[in-house]
Amino acid sequence: MLNPFDADRIAALKSLLPGGTIFAADARYLEEPRGLYHSATGTVAKPRNTQEVATIVRFCAEHGVGVVPYGGGTGLVGGQVKPDGPAALIVSLERMSAIVDLQPADNTLTCQAGAILANIQTAADGADRMFPLSLASEASCQIGGNLATNAGGVQVLRYGNTRDLCLGIEAVLPDGTIFDGLSGLRKDNTGYDLRHLLIGAEGSLGIITAAVLKLVPKPRHHTTAVVAVTGPAAATAFLAILQDYLDGSVSAFELMHRHGMDFLAEHAPDVRLPLDPVPDWSVLCGATSGIGGDMEDRFLAALEVALEQGLIHDAVLAQSQAQRDALWQVRERIPEANRLVGSVSSHDISVPIGRIPDFISDGFEAVAQLGDFRVNCFGHLGDGNLHYNVFPPVGRSKSDYAGRRGTVLRCIHDLVHHYGGSISAEHGIGRSKVAELELYGDPGKVAAIKLVKRALDPLGIMNPGAVVHATDYAPSDGLNGA
Amino acid sequence: MLNPFDADRIAALKSLLPGGTIFAADARYLEEPRGLYHSATGTVAKPRNTQEVATIVRFCAEHGVGVVPYGGGTGLVGGQVKPDGPAALIVSLERMSAIVDLQPADNTLTCQAGAILANIQTAADGADRMFPLSLASEASCQIGGNLATNAGGVQVLRYGNTRDLCLGIEAVLPDGTIFDGLSGLRKDNTGYDLRHLLIGAEGSLGIITAAVLKLVPKPRHHTTAVVAVTGPAAATAFLAILQDYLDGSVSAFELMHRHGMDFLAEHAPDVRLPLDPVPDWSVLCGATSGIGGDMEDRFLAALEVALEQGLIHDAVLAQSQAQRDALWQVRERIPEANRLVGSVSSHDISVPIGRIPDFISDGFEAVAQLGDFRVNCFGHLGDGNLHYNVFPPVGRSKSDYAGRRGTVLRCIHDLVHHYGGSISAEHGIGRSKVAELELYGDPGKVAAIKLVKRALDPLGIMNPGAVVHATDYAPSDGLNGA
Repeated sequence: MLNPFDADRIAALKSLLPGGTIFAADARYLEEPRGLYHSATGTVAKPRNTQEVATIVRFCAEHGVGVVPYGGGTGLVGGQVKPDGPAALIVSLERMSAIVDLQPADNTLTCQAGAILANIQTAADGADRMFPLSLASEASCQIGGNLATNAGGVQVLRYGNTRDLCLGIEAVLPDGTIFDGLSGLRKDNTGYDLRHLLIGAEGSLGIITAAVLKLVPKPRHHTTAVVAVTGPAAATAFLAILQDYLDGSVSAFELMHRHGMDFLAEHAPDVRLPLDPVPDWSVLCGATSGIGGDMEDRFLAALEVALEQGLIHDAVLAQSQAQRDALWQVRERIPEANRLVGSVSSHDISVPIGRIPDFISDGFEAVAQLGDFRVNCFGHLGDGNLHYNVFPPVGRSKSDYAGRRGTVLRCIHDLVHHYGGSISAEHGIGRSKVAELELYGDPGKVAAIKLVKRALDPLGIMNPGAVVHATDYAPSDGLNGA
Repeated sequence: MLNPFDADRIAALKSLLPGGTIFAADARYLEEPRGLYHSATGTVAKPRNTQEVATIVRFCAEHGVGVVPYGGGTGLVGGQVKPDGPAALIVSLERMSAIVDLQPADNTLTCQAGAILANIQTAADGADRMFPLSLASEASCQIGGNLATNAGGVQVLRYGNTRDLCLGIEAVLPDGTIFDGLSGLRKDNTGYDLRHLLIGAEGSLGIITAAVLKLVPKPRHHTTAVVAVTGPAAATAFLAILQDYLDGSVSAFELMHRHGMDFLAEHAPDVRLPLDPVPDWSVLCGATSGIGGDMEDRFLAALEVALEQGLIHDAVLAQSQAQRDALWQVRERIPEANRLVGSVSSHDISVPIGRIPDFISDGFEAVAQLGDFRVNCFGHLGDGNLHYNVFPPVGRSKSDYAGRRGTVLRCIHDLVHHYGGSISAEHGIGRSKVAELELYGDPGKVAAIKLVKRALDPLGIMNPGAVVHATDYAPSDGLNGA
């Protein structure tokens, strides 16, 4: 059982740190975007460097006090707010936002964990490079949080998830030990890969304090199109053709359902819909290339093959940066329209790409049996990752269906599990999906997770209640007994 | 302390398995390519499926018997042979060699861990795809061993190390629990990434029994050249130009030193050297692209820029598959020539790419102070990975310098460490580099490795003595005390 971070302990920790490090927490540290978790009060530490983080964590380990790492606060699964149990210490990385080094020859950028993603993108651009991670909250999210949650976004198809864009990390482990893995090497086979263990651990195994990120050559040519496809199966077949022509250059392949277009027409009428008539299914696809690497001819050749095979029936290709931005607006503003409609239940799921067509059709059928709902199914088809969101019928509001959320969620997650998919493709487990992980996770994996958690954090102080239940790894359990 | 796998235990385990599973080990299971480790006798199990592996490991856990996983036997750091301590059971995956599934739409191939790498490449090719992992021992190495050691090879620059080519694994954990992580999803953020923990763990945390591998579109155009560069610094600058033109398409960038050419001329005279006069430094570079994606114009444009900048001074571009093969022969037969010359000490090292020029020049100087040695420095420059091998002077043999090996090795590894590099870029730790990891590894990392090992393998039965000393993780140690 943890101890509260009470007045005596606040005073004791303050005495170990420079003045102006420990504060009563503002409201923003105590709530999260979904509004599902909330603390009434709290204390936040704002360390300036890794040594101060180590001092804080060592103190909390000695006192058995919980530590909640805090980045940009944009996480969607409650990983950043601890609402119950003994008062924990929030550790915000906001002052550790420096971009420390950028090596064009290495294609690397080294920064502290509190660096804002957009600032990292800008720094890379200034050095004629690109940092490919790109997601809706990039203006406020921090790279430490992106790493802790292994964030996804819109360029995963070509460049991978956050873990694939990280060459090394520095972290403070749960007893205050500093792990320095900032070498930035592209090949290093010296023992277990702690980097990949801490990435995606959502602060439950330590606090990531710095990282070496992988940069890529800056794209010199873009090809962007919205293409009407005859259905999800046609979309996956079209993706294969596109990749055969454009090889690794395909960077985005986003599926969009007609309901998303309807929501935009109703709630974001300034967004121009590119195809008329509005198709039931369309994809936004993009590819990028180097100097002299104009791909439009090959893109058109792939479209022609797909047209001949009856996979697509309409397409708009951007001819300028403005047109490209306009096409991306369609995809990027669907979440805003979704919020204005108000979903009964939202799901961040993935299944193997080849099974997506059957999953979508089975899902539509299963949801129809639950009621007259509308499903807006859209997202990163090229990664097998869909945002599969269920909305009330026309003329009704989500509040009419508040009691149905659990039923809808269980229906979708059961189906995802049946299809060998994931109930959290890119958002993580946080606090909101701990029970789902227990329910659907491979038992061997769940048991091993608890053993690793217990080994590195025997007191359970690191982000208590995130990823695993706070009380769920008593020292007597083994792999089978956990 | 482990128990020996003695006659009684052999009989007991036999009774749990179908006949013809447990054998006295042939010599090939008891030695390894470097000849540094050797067992006199041993017992080998040849399970047919994952359940049998689980039965074997569970038995060994109950009896406190060591387990040495065995793949193709091609590892170069002694990870596959346990020469001392109580007799362990060798578990060979050779019968589990099936390619179980290939999904073109998903770009995935699922296979058992004993599948030979070349057979996986062939299966992918048959489905109009490519599995990019490619290395010297591909005709005999097994994918389970490639995963356990996170093997590198000649296409890492574009496609990553083995861990980057794996979407999921199945493994038997040290108590016999089966971890089923074969979903093959491209995005799955549900708890700690056990896949990445087991990949590169060299069998010390469990036995990988199956994997889902990532396939890529089959390359339709190849551009291959050998280019004379004015030195290592010019080579790294040329790489940046090439990547600016060809973006992610650059798949190989191999540095070669003149000594390698001299060794070939002497010991492999059938290899035609492409450049005359033979330059001090040259690079073999390659790029691949999709349908209609001929890159020769862009490649030539990049060469022109590099020529104008004085980075390169000669080049040969392959105009046919035969010419491409001939250029690759130069690079691929250097190791054979090296063996025939006989090195005093060989080093599989990496440093950040931008620091390679200084490292090479400092290294030449440091070695010169040790004696009149020849250094053949070559390898995967695009990954910062060099094979930095030290040879005796002309007219002398390696046996004349047997006593100097340790001094040379320490000199090179100290320098690598000084440059923030790795003393094992792609071969792993195995048994031969455990002390080196202790010496050069980040103390926080080394401590955490021992805690994880102890948590998942409390008896220390899995590949005892590999990665960490067999006796080196007593239960009383914490992160700081380890």
